[in-house]
Amino acid sequence: LSVVPKIDPTDYVGFTFFVGAMAMMGASAFFFLSLSQFDRKWRTSVLVSGLITFIAAVHYFYMKDYWSAHMESPTFFRYVDWFLTVPLMCVEFFLILKVAGAKTSLMWRLIGLSVIMLITGYLGEAVFTNQAELWGGISGVAYFVIVYDIWLGKAKKLAVAAGGDILKAHKILCWFVLVGWAIYPLGYMLGTEGWYTSIIGTGSVDIVYNIADAINKIGFGLVIYALAIKKTDNKV
Amino acid sequence: LSVVPKIDPTDYVGFTFFVGAMAMMGASAFFFLSLSQFDRKWRTSVLVSGLITFIAAVHYFYMKDYWSAHMESPTFFRYVDWFLTVPLMCVEFFLILKVAGAKTSLMWRLIGLSVIMLITGYLGEAVFTNQAELWGGISGVAYFVIVYDIWLGKAKKLAVAAGGDILKAHKILCWFVLVGWAIYPLGYMLGTEGWYTSIIGTGSVDIVYNIADAINKIGFGLVIYALAIKKTDNKV
Ligand SMILES: CC1=C(/C=C/C(C)=C/C=C/C(C)=C/C=O)C(C)(C)CCC1
Ligand SMILES: CC1=C(/C=C/C(C)=C/C=C/C(C)=C/C=O)C(C)(C)CCC1
Repeated sequence: LSVVPKIDPTDYVGFTFFVGAMAMMGASAFFFLSLSQFDRKWRTSVLVSGLITFIAAVHYFYMKDYWSAHMESPTFFRYVDWFLTVPLMCVEFFLILKVAGAKTSLMWRLIGLSVIMLITGYLGEAVFTNQAELWGGISGVAYFVIVYDIWLGKAKKLAVAAGGDILKAHKILCWFVLVGWAIYPLGYMLGTEGWYTSIIGTGSVDIVYNIADAINKIGFGLVIYALAIKKTDNKV
Repeated sequence: LSVVPKIDPTDYVGFTFFVGAMAMMGASAFFFLSLSQFDRKWRTSVLVSGLITFIAAVHYFYMKDYWSAHMESPTFFRYVDWFLTVPLMCVEFFLILKVAGAKTSLMWRLIGLSVIMLITGYLGEAVFTNQAELWGGISGVAYFVIVYDIWLGKAKKLAVAAGGDILKAHKILCWFVLVGWAIYPLGYMLGTEGWYTSIIGTGSVDIVYNIADAINKIGFGLVIYALAIKKTDNKV
């Protein structure tokens, strides 16, 4: 009996957990250690990118162990992670638009919506699993309101007012939320029972969530990083 | 038999321990890595904010494991944490008022009062649990003296003398102590037996304490952070 379990080489889900864990930790080191390269006012944004991947890294370390031990989706840790990282992504949107005069009320609105999205998602995926359709639907509504807010609502107007590189970065982030985030409900539908099950079947939620997390956490962070590089005057 | 325990998705208390642990660790990374953005004389205050959340993070990692293993309040670790973090918060009050000429005697007075508050609270909550009213009452008196000192006593006078942003920050911190800290005795009354039990009933001490900690440690730190940002001249 050992504390280090044997590993099945065909455990591909486990493989993505391990790759994910260290990708997140590596990305955190990258963002954190690059901070001194930027003008002060851009450091906070890159720092928050690093926080997002750092928080994810720790939860991926839990999740890979949980998966190895029980061969069961670590839904609990998944949502602990999202409860911290998704609101922080809303903070990122706010930080970028602050130069254009964004108010904290915009940030709190996005945070509130994302919390509703996550609580209802958790209830459907982990607690009331026989009502997954219902809770997933409510979660989806909150998600659409977020998409609306940033694509067409107040956030959009502020980005247009800021123009230039900020508008460009905002647009890229909007695509992340529309396309990258849309992978999550797909994972949810693979892992729960509902009208959609006859269409898309069932499959590994975790591979889907792990890929989505890599795109949305590391990719999103790199967009902020690139913006901060562009905006830093002293390039020496 | 495995070292990674299975987790019940409806263990909401456990959820708040996990969220709390990583929120504290994330906040610490944030405060520590932001230090270079401030004028030197403000760095100590932000550094102490980071210490408070970092100390809490480590104890939350203990507490989440203790909770998962025994489904019992980790009162021991809770107070180990408070014995370090609450005095550090008194140091923060002092650091902010130092520019206004605060003496170290003010700091030691606040530290002494907070230690009395915590020792008596621990005795009531963990040792002489059938005298919880008595010990909680003594603890409450020490708490009120702290509230008096900072709202109306010497600390207040110094803050008024300093004026401007320092007075503003002091006021916000005073509200934290009056409202945010008042959540703790509420948790205490939920978890112990006394005259109050017939009024407020019993409930999960830990959810209450965890929420209070998030507000008072991270929120308090962010107020200091915002003050340091405002006071830093060179914003490049
Ligand atoms: C719409 C929807 C969902 C959306 C989840 C999302 C959008 C999660 C985003 C997570 C991110 C971006 C993490 C990275 O840090 C759930 C909860 C699966 C439930 C089903 C409906
Ligand atoms: C008044 C009172 C209490 C007060 C506790 C407080 C005020 C704790 C503050 C902790 C903080 C601020 C931690 C953050 O770092 C006790 C001990 C529960 C016992 C019952 C009476």
